[in-house]
Order: sequence, then C-alpha cells, then structure tokens
Amino acid sequence: MYIGEMTRDDFKASADRDPIVIVPWGACEAHGPHLPLDTDTIQPVYVATEVSRRLQNTLVAPPVNYALHSSTRDMPGTLTISFDTVRSIAYDLVISLWRQGVDRTVILAGHAGSGHISAILEGCKKAVRETGTQVIFLSDWHISEDYGACGDDDGHAGCVETSRILAIRPDLVGSIDRDAGHFEHTYRILRDGSTCLPDGYQGRISEATADLGASINDYIVETIIGIIQHDFELAA
Amino acid sequence: MYIGEMTRDDFKASADRDPIVIVPWGACEAHGPHLPLDTDTIQPVYVATEVSRRLQNTLVAPPVNYALHSSTRDMPGTLTISFDTVRSIAYDLVISLWRQGVDRTVILAGHAGSGHISAILEGCKKAVRETGTQVIFLSDWHISEDYGACGDDDGHAGCVETSRILAIRPDLVGSIDRDAGHFEHTYRILRDGSTCLPDGYQGRISEATADLGASINDYIVETIIGIIQHDFELAA
Amino acid sequence: MYIGEMTRDDFKASADRDPIVIVPWGACEAHGPHLPLDTDTIQPVYVATEVSRRLQNTLVAPPVNYALHSSTRDMPGTLTISFDTVRSIAYDLVISLWRQGVDRTVILAGHAGSGHISAILEGCKKAVRETGTQVIFLSDWHISEDYGACGDDDGHAGCVETSRILAIRPDLVGSIDRDAGHFEHTYRILRDGSTCLPDGYQGRISEATADLGASINDYIVETIIGIIQHDFELAA
Amino acid sequence: MYIGEMTRDDFKASADRDPIVIVPWGACEAHGPHLPLDTDTIQPVYVATEVSRRLQNTLVAPPVNYALHSSTRDMPGTLTISFDTVRSIAYDLVISLWRQGVDRTVILAGHAGSGHISAILEGCKKAVRETGTQVIFLSDWHISEDYGACGDDDGHAGCVETSRILAIRPDLVGSIDRDAGHFEHTYRILRDGSTCLPDGYQGRISEATADLGASINDYIVETIIGIIQHDFELAA
Amino acid sequence: MYIGEMTRDDFKASADRDPIVIVPWGACEAHGPHLPLDTDTIQPVYVATEVSRRLQNTLVAPPVNYALHSSTRDMPGTLTISFDTVRSIAYDLVISLWRQGVDRTVILAGHAGSGHISAILEGCKKAVRETGTQVIFLSDWHISEDYGACGDDDGHAGCVETSRILAIRPDLVGSIDRDAGHFEHTYRILRDGSTCLPDGYQGRISEATADLGASINDYIVETIIGIIQHDFELAA
Amino acid sequence: MYIGEMTRDDFKASADRDPIVIVPWGACEAHGPHLPLDTDTIQPVYVATEVSRRLQNTLVAPPVNYALHSSTRDMPGTLTISFDTVRSIAYDLVISLWRQGVDRTVILAGHAGSGHISAILEGCKKAVRETGTQVIFLSDWHISEDYGACGDDDGHAGCVETSRILAIRPDLVGSIDRDAGHFEHTYRILRDGSTCLPDGYQGRISEATADLGASINDYIVETIIGIIQHDFELAA
Repeated sequence: MYIGEMTRDDFKASADRDPIVIVPWGACEAHGPHLPLDTDTIQPVYVATEVSRRLQNTLVAPPVNYALHSSTRDMPGTLTISFDTVRSIAYDLVISLWRQGVDRTVILAGHAGSGHISAILEGCKKAVRETGTQVIFLSDWHISEDYGACGDDDGHAGCVETSRILAIRPDLVGSIDRDAGHFEHTYRILRDGSTCLPDGYQGRISEATADLGASINDYIVETIIGIIQHDFELAA
Repeated sequence: MYIGEMTRDDFKASADRDPIVIVPWGACEAHGPHLPLDTDTIQPVYVATEVSRRLQNTLVAPPVNYALHSSTRDMPGTLTISFDTVRSIAYDLVISLWRQGVDRTVILAGHAGSGHISAILEGCKKAVRETGTQVIFLSDWHISEDYGACGDDDGHAGCVETSRILAIRPDLVGSIDRDAGHFEHTYRILRDGSTCLPDGYQGRISEATADLGASINDYIVETIIGIIQHDFELAA
Repeated sequence: MYIGEMTRDDFKASADRDPIVIVPWGACEAHGPHLPLDTDTIQPVYVATEVSRRLQNTLVAPPVNYALHSSTRDMPGTLTISFDTVRSIAYDLVISLWRQGVDRTVILAGHAGSGHISAILEGCKKAVRETGTQVIFLSDWHISEDYGACGDDDGHAGCVETSRILAIRPDLVGSIDRDAGHFEHTYRILRDGSTCLPDGYQGRISEATADLGASINDYIVETIIGIIQHDFELAA
Repeated sequence: MYIGEMTRDDFKASADRDPIVIVPWGACEAHGPHLPLDTDTIQPVYVATEVSRRLQNTLVAPPVNYALHSSTRDMPGTLTISFDTVRSIAYDLVISLWRQGVDRTVILAGHAGSGHISAILEGCKKAVRETGTQVIFLSDWHISEDYGACGDDDGHAGCVETSRILAIRPDLVGSIDRDAGHFEHTYRILRDGSTCLPDGYQGRISEATADLGASINDYIVETIIGIIQHDFELAA
Repeated sequence: MYIGEMTRDDFKASADRDPIVIVPWGACEAHGPHLPLDTDTIQPVYVATEVSRRLQNTLVAPPVNYALHSSTRDMPGTLTISFDTVRSIAYDLVISLWRQGVDRTVILAGHAGSGHISAILEGCKKAVRETGTQVIFLSDWHISEDYGACGDDDGHAGCVETSRILAIRPDLVGSIDRDAGHFEHTYRILRDGSTCLPDGYQGRISEATADLGASINDYIVETIIGIIQHDFELAA
Repeated sequence: MYIGEMTRDDFKASADRDPIVIVPWGACEAHGPHLPLDTDTIQPVYVATEVSRRLQNTLVAPPVNYALHSSTRDMPGTLTISFDTVRSIAYDLVISLWRQGVDRTVILAGHAGSGHISAILEGCKKAVRETGTQVIFLSDWHISEDYGACGDDDGHAGCVETSRILAIRPDLVGSIDRDAGHFEHTYRILRDGSTCLPDGYQGRISEATADLGASINDYIVETIIGIIQHDFELAA
C-alpha cells in the first residue's frame, strides 16, 4: 500500500482501480528538548499508513519531508523551505498524480503553521481549478485538537505531540518533566518568531503518556477515514 | 547520525562540532517491471547512511523524495516535480543548513536525469554564490558507472541498479529475465521521452546479483568518502 | 489625518513625529442581496479613521480597494485579484512606508478570507524580515467575532456585518428579512466555492440593527487602539 | 453608477445590460508643496464619475489608489508599488471584470509616469490577448495636455493640475505663488529622479484658477466620452 | 573597437582605460515588402560603429538581435521575444558590463515600439538602482524623428528608414513606389495590432534616397556623440 | 538564406515551403589570450551558414550573441546573461518561429557550458511540450569532440577551437605557443570557477593549424546535416 515499494506494474494495477492516494507531508523542525526533529513526519506517516490499512483502495505516497517554518526557524535543527517552494511542491504533486490517473488525493500535513498550511492550500487550489481533480487537505494537528486532551494551553511539542510520539516511536522521546507556560498572543509580525516560544514547546508534557497518544492517534485515523468517506462520497 | 531522529539539543551539539551534512535526494519513478518506484531513494539513503557510519562527524538529513523526470514521466508510478521546484528545494535546503551553522553540505542524488541534475546544480550555485557555503553535489549513479560493471549498454533500471537494490532491499525486486536492448540516441527534443526506453529499462538484468550490488554499493561509499575528504580538504 | 489629503510638506511634518500609519484594505465583493459590494472597504476605512481620531499621531493611508476572493469569486459583483498580487501590494506598501520613514504600520483588512489573509501576511513578513520595520496586521472581522453578538452561526454578510453597515452607511443597506442557514464544512478543496454559501450570506440578519452595529464598531475601534498601544509598546 | 455602492443584485442587473466599466487608477504622490498627495486619484475619480453620469450604461469601479513612481519616489508622501505589482493588478482586474461578464473596460490613470503607463499597458495586453475582451487605456493627464493651457513648460503639479484640483477640491490646495522653472532633459537613467524636479513641481502655478480647471476637466470628460464612443463603436 | 573581435587581454587593456560601451539592440521584424528583416539591427550597429570610430575610448558590444514586437508580430518574418525576456537581457548585460569594470553603458535600440522601449528601460533602471552604474538609453529612431525629414506621416519602414538602409546596405532594399497612407490612432488595446499598419509600412517611400539616408545617419551619429558627451559629462 | 537579409515577402515565400531554421547561439566570452571574445559566435554562425548552403530549404536566423557563463565569468571580456534569461530566449524564439509557420527548428550553440546547455534545453522542452513543434538542439563543441583531434586534454580555447578560428577568421587569432596543462576535476560547486582554468585555456595550442580547423569544421557541418536528415526524417 506504500507506493514507493510498488513496481511500475503494481502501481498500474492499483491506478486502474481508481485509488485514493494520501501524501504525508512532514517537516524537520525543533520540537523542544525532548522530541525528534522528524516529529511532524512521524505522525502523518503513521496516520496515513493506518488509514491505508483500514480503508480499501487507499495508497500512501512517499512523504514530503520538509516544510515552511516561522516561529521555530532559528531554533537548532529546523530546516525550512520557502512559501513558494511549498506551494510548487503541492501543485506539482497533485498535477502529477492526476496525470497518473489519480483524481482523489489527500494531503496530510504534520506541521500546521499558518504559512505552511496556506502555501499547500494555494498550490492545491490552483491544481484543482486547472484540472477538476479532487483534493482533501488537512492536518492531523488540527484533528488532534478536536480530541480535547491536555488542556487549552497545550501547543507545539506539548502533551499531545509527546503522547503521540510516545505511542509510535518511544525510543526517540527524551525525558523531561518541566511543563512550559503559555505566551501572550500579539498581532505584531515578528522578525524572530522564537520569542513566542521561549522554551521551544508549550504545555503540560509531564502528563504525556503512550496510552493517551495511542488513543489520540486512533481518533485521528478514524476521523480522517470518516472525512475521506464523506468528502469523496464513498459508499459506506 | 540521522538528523530526523535527533532532538533540537542533539542537533545543537552536533552543529557545534562543525559537521558535514548529506542530503539524500530520491525520486518516485518507474524502474521497469521489476524494481520499486523508490529505487532512486533507496540507493542514496543507503549510501548516505553508510558514509555517515564510516566518516566521522557526518550527518544524514531527511531525504527529498521527489525529482524531475522526463523520459519516464508518463510511465505508471512516476511522480514528477518541475525544474523550478527542484531548483528551489536545493537552494532553500542549502541556505537553511547554512543558517543552522552547517557550511559543508553534500547533496547526493539518486536520480541522474539531465534536467534534474542541472536544476539541483543551479539551486546550489545560487546558494553558494550568495553565502560562500561549501557544497558537494554528485549522483551515486554517475559513480556507479565508473565501477565498470554490466557493460556499456547498461542503463536505467538495468543490471547495476537491479544488483544494488538486490543488495539493499531484495524483498522489493521482482523476478524478470528478459534483457532489454539499447536505443539509438538522437538530438530531437522529444515530447514523449518514453519512446527512448520502450521496455522501461535497459541492460542485461539477467546478470544482476546481490553480490555484485553489494560490491558496487561499497565502491560508491568509499569513493564518496574519498571525494568528501578531498574536496572539503579533510585531514587524513 | 488622512494621508491622501495632506500635501508633501504636511506629510513631511507628520513623518518627522514618527507616526503610526494605518492602511485600510478593502474589497469589492458580493455581500448577499442586501449589502453593498464595498462592505469590506467601508468597515475598515471607518475603523481606521476612528482610531486615527482617537489615538495621537496616527495617520490613515489611502485604502487598497481590492482583495483575493475564493468562495464568492463567481458571485455577481466580486472583483478579485490574485494571491501573488495581494502579497506584492502588501510588501510594496510596507517597504514604501518604511522608506518614507514610517516604521510602525498597521494593515487593517476588511475581508478575512483565508487566502487573502495569508497573502497579506506573507508580504508583510518578507518586508519585516528585510527591514526590521514594525507591522501589525489584523482584520476587523476577526475582532468583531470576539464581540460575541448574533450567535455562532453568523457569517459572511450576516447579522454582524449588516449591523455595522447600518451604523455607518444605512443608505446602502437593502431590506431583507430571510435568515440564511449555515452550511456544513468539509475538507474538500472546492473548484467552485460558492456552493458553501448558497444564499450568498449567512446568519440571522433579521436581528441586525444600527445600534448593535455602532456598538460593535466602537468595540473594534477600542480593541484596535489597545492592540496598537500594547504591540507597539506605546506609553499609556 | 459607482459599483462599490451597488449590491450583488444591482450589479447583476447592470451586467446583464452589457455595461462599460471605468476603473479610475490613482496614486499617492508628492505634488509640490501645494497639492494633496491624492491629486492623481481625485482627478480620474472625478472624470470617471462625470463620464458615467453623462454616458448611458457606464459604471465606475472602485479606484486603485497606488501607482509606480520614479522621479518623485523619494519625495515625502509618495508611496510606490512596483512595476510587476501594477502590471498584475491591471491584468487581474481586466480578467476579473471579464469573468463577471464585462467585456468593455476603460482604465483611466491619473498618474502618467512612463513606467506606470507601460506596466498597466502590459497587464492589459496580456488580458486582451488571452480573452479577447475590449480595453481602452488612457490617462487624463495626456488628454489635458491636448487642451493646450498653461504653456509648454507646464508639468507635474503645475498650472494645469493645480487648476483642476482648484475646481474639484479647492479646500485641499495650498497657497503658493512661486512658479517653478523647467529642467533639461537627458537620456541618462537616473538613480535618484528627483533631481529632475528640484521644486517638486513645474510650471506657472500663479496662473492656475478654478475656472480654468473646470474648463479643462470638462474638456477631458467630453473627450473621453468621444473616445469611448469611437473606440467601442457605440451607436451615436 | 568591436568587443567581439578583441581578445581577453585586449578587452582588459581597454577596460583599464574606463571606456564607454555601446550595446546595439536590433530586431528581426517585418519592414514592409521592401526592407530587410534586420533593418532595426543594421541601423544601430552602423550608428554604434560610427560613434565608436569618432569618439575616443568607446567600444561596441555584440548586438542583441531580437526585440519585443506588438503591431507587426503576426507579419511574416517578425520574431519576437517577450517583455520579461527583453527586460532580463537589459538587466543582465548592464550588470555584467559593470562587473567587468564598465560603468558607462549606452544601449542603442533600433526598434522603438513602446513595449520594447519600456522593457529595456525597466531592466536598466533596476541595474542602475542596484549598482549606481551609469546608463544612457536611447533609440536612433527617436533621434531620426528630430531630423525632420519625410513629413509628419512618416512611420514604420517609411521614407526615413528606407533612406537610411539605402545609405548603409542598398543591396538589401527592394524597389517599390507606392506610398502607404496613415491610419487613425485609437486608445483600444488591440489583440491584433497589424490592423494599424495595413500595408506593413507608412510614409512616402517614393521620396527615399541614399543621400537623404546618409545625411540622417550622420545627424544621428553626431547627435548621439553630443548626448554621450553631455550626459556622461565628458571633457570637450 | 540568412533570414535577416530577407524581406517580409521573401520570408513568406520561404515559410510556405516548410523550411528548417537554424538559430546560431553564440557568446561573448574570454577565450584565452589568443582568441577573440566572439569565438563561440563565429563558430556556429559559420557552421549554420555552411549547413544552409549545402542542405536544401534551410534558413539561418539572426544569432543570439550572449550566453550563460560560469567558470570564465570573471575573466576580462566575458559578458554573461542568467540561466532564466537564456531559458526564456530559447522558449520565446522556438514559439515565435512556430507561430510563423516554422515547425522544424535547430538551435546550434557555440558555447557548451553545462548551465547554458541545460537552460536552452529547458526552454526548448517547454516550447515542444506546449506546441508539438520539432526542435533539434546541439552544440558544435560536442560534435568537435567526436572528431578526435588534439588529444584528450584539449579544452576551452584549446587546439580544436584555435584551429577552427584559424580556418574561419585567422586575422583574429593572436600568436601564442605555450600549451596549458589540465586541472583536476572536483565535485565542489565553486564560487569562483576561474580557478579551474588558471591560464584561461586548456590544451596543446601549439599544434593548432588552419588546415586542421577546416577539416574539423567540415566534419561538423556534414555531421549536423546527417543529424538533421535523420532526426527530422528527411527523404535522402
């Protein structure tokens, strides 16, 4: 079900069955002192793989491993690509899938910074307008917020993300116990966004557990399956 | 040694030691009826990881998983991004690494189509000119040609590539025994490049073996280590 | 206090006092059967003018009268400019003001579509990064939501906007009494966004009154004054 | 007749009658010590409104309030947008009007700097070539030159412009009586164009009167009506 | 004095004397039934060469042989490049000359269509702003108009141009005797500009003579020498 | 047979016979102490003219006289245009010729730097994909390598190029007798490429003769005729 491990002829056979293709879009971004830089890649790759396992006729494309970052761009380990680069990648991939006969594409972004989200959105809109192909775009981050765990002040690399990585790749999670307070929002456009996130993470990470993470991950997987079924009007 | 599994603080500690960073650049491309679409990702990721294991102070960045394709673009499974997208990614990553304190970057491309190679090259040149950062750019494909196995008419998805994947991921190699003949080169710019490669691969793949692949892979790893030591003027 | 009515020498004298400049950013967009196409221009121009009247040393620049539209783009009367055009205008104006000695700019957008907002944001970010000038960017729409009138299902051209225009330009408001229901959100990227807004407006507009509008407008003006004082760290 | 004050349904009714739409294009530009920065907005808005009043089935769109400036760019109060931004706005608006069913657009520019004029022209040409829509582009400045008042050495913010603003917005005109001499033209491309215009205006402004301005304005309105009738081949 | 025939070391020696460099900019454009497509190349190359012969320390760069065309673009033989291409060439050449130590460049355009002229101008302005290099930009066409021969209705491929080519390359001039009338100017932006020029040329070409052409050419050469001396402030 | 010397009607008559058009693409580039800067223009112009003389129905377009340079860009006399400019020129010319009815275009590049070659290639590919026009792209440099003269270490401005210019324009060749050694290739992307070419040329130029040059030129002409016949499938 992972496209990268298929041969040309495997892919051809799948494409002939009019599949749904999920493109996981990750990031290489500082996630506090305790989570791996690939946190935003690990999460959507896991979710996409699970959705593909549970939903018929659904393939996973190779992940995009880089994103646009703003507030964390100067923290160690964050590698950022520009708005226009993100937009072009999104456009090119949707068009290329469509030329390959795939007209139902899901882009699943692990990183949900507003610039990154709108860059992908703009690229997808252009492709949809030009071809009529069908695209769902969402971030598992936004869906995890609906789950309602860890309190309102949870944020980047906080209790939710720590729990989720504990459930998927516990070997990559460092041990910390100091919760990080929240910061006040302003309307200033910041030259150095890192001042918003003095500790590099936000939330009560001391409450993070693998069980909670597994539960959130499962919620996300099932929610996305529901969204795909609804928005692509699949027969139940 | 894989950046994506490091935390922010791991990366900081590494960056303070002035590391070399290798970015493996893969592709999702039809490789005949027998090789996986990720062939050009699997190869440079393997090579980069081995180089990093054998050469001190060398890190591997998350791979870029998509490339620009021309002759195979209409074959099932090939997903292509445009020249300008490739060029922007290369530029953005070199600049982003440089801003993170990395001024010795190696880009290692699995796919060696001429458009793809020149797109990466142009992006790197711009970054080098603007910053003075040091960049080595090469393709393991070109180095594998120097090894001299499989005859002059070996090519895309041929005996060399089949051997190399047999050595790394034998579970992904299909069984075929029909060799594919070569095609005549012309100076025409083709609208549909696939006519150059009627079978989708080229060479005597019946001669491919895992042992040969392991030997080629090892040759590539050692050659690249030598190139890095020479071009970055490392003390022996 | 309106820049367009100043002479060169008036402006020079103001600029020497290190002023704050507000750029109202409007739109020409279908706002249901009852509101004028300039609704999103009338609102921020009114707000900017009031802020300038109440807050010392604050000027209003000529409004930008066009925006990027998505869901209403095919409704009669909507005139849209592209994402890149919006982004360029934002960048150019912030840079031009900065070259004129203005390093505290407020962009106040009447239209708050997500594409439009992110286009302005991206243009401002680029200018801020290059120059260090200070920029506040907000939409009076988002602040009107904080006021909490008209219920959760109020939306485009609904009770809030109708009330606000009734308070500013009652002569331009048509009479309607049919409330418009809400629509279900999906993650599909729509080729024709107007299906989201079948009536072209959303909310209980029968409850709109000029008094409510005046109250919301005043709330917005005072809130923005507070934001400017806080984010630009003005002495109280 | 002003589009911004129409509702969606008003516009729809007008568009069904195949209207002509005039887009006034203004500027925020230093106009000597005596004229308002909005001089080049006030003039085409006035003219467009008058044409619309006298010529059947003619609408006025919201003005574009910013232009590209060269020689005055460093004078206090001039706010400039770039060549490519102007070109994009022109293209986007002509296309957007055409998508709304308007295929006879008039762009009326108050500012007539050569860069600004050619930027609008290039944007319009692209839109015309792609769609076949009909566009008239002119500047009231050029037509005012045909009127033949104020002598050959009249120029920027000179006797003609001062007279015209005296006729429209006398409250915004400062009192000065020193005429400004002319400067010698060269073929050098100037880094700082303001050296061409040492006083920031050019001409015998002591001869400016509201009566002359009213007469010039009327001449422009009638001339433009004639041009529209001729170039769009309206029945007399 | 022609750069293309110099060696590297010849150029170095010249560049050390702080030379003026003239770049002739030609075109491949239909010029009626009687003049060669290279008409707009032949003229500025001749003029530049003559200026270089008469004015000390002045070099001629290889000509640019293509231009942007509008009204003649669909006539047989016209080869056009786009606005942005022209602008980029102008920018690149001025910058490249400046990097070579040449800070007084003259661009001499044979073709004087308004789009072409403004494209070169915009490219030069950008280069001048970024570097401070000195650039004179003019068209020999505009100077030939000042000479005052052949009447007011002379135009493209008319009596002036025919005379000039008769003086330089009489072997390339076909024989025709039918004068072509003028056409009425409009403000419409034309999709097919060739309707403006039904015969493909304009003027009383029956009056063209080699003597007149020689005289015009000489006038242009001397005028340009005067302009260069004045605008670059050369000692007499 | 040279388009620039044809009139509109000559061109029309030729175009009606479905001609092949060769565009020679030159350069202004330092070629050691002994060869003219136009070396890479003189060669393809000569070759194109000869091909046109020997092959029926083949025209030569005006040459493009500038190219993209990398390793020689800082040597005296090299004038470079950017990658994107080269790409745009190639695209524009192929499209413009195609609009003129020419659907078999040959681009013949004298300069064969890898960036320049790929820029032309990318421009041609885009034009071919959009229109289906037929394009052959080659460099006479590459073909001269097949001839096999002057040894393996011959290179830029070496024995082959010196011989070729001795055969075409002996008056422009300076006298030198010191051969220049070769340099070691690396994978580093160089900020200043001139370190690769310390003498500015490479090879045993003491062995260059006009006879050898004539022979190489003839080989190139005949080889290109063969390529055109083969790739455009001309009847023998």
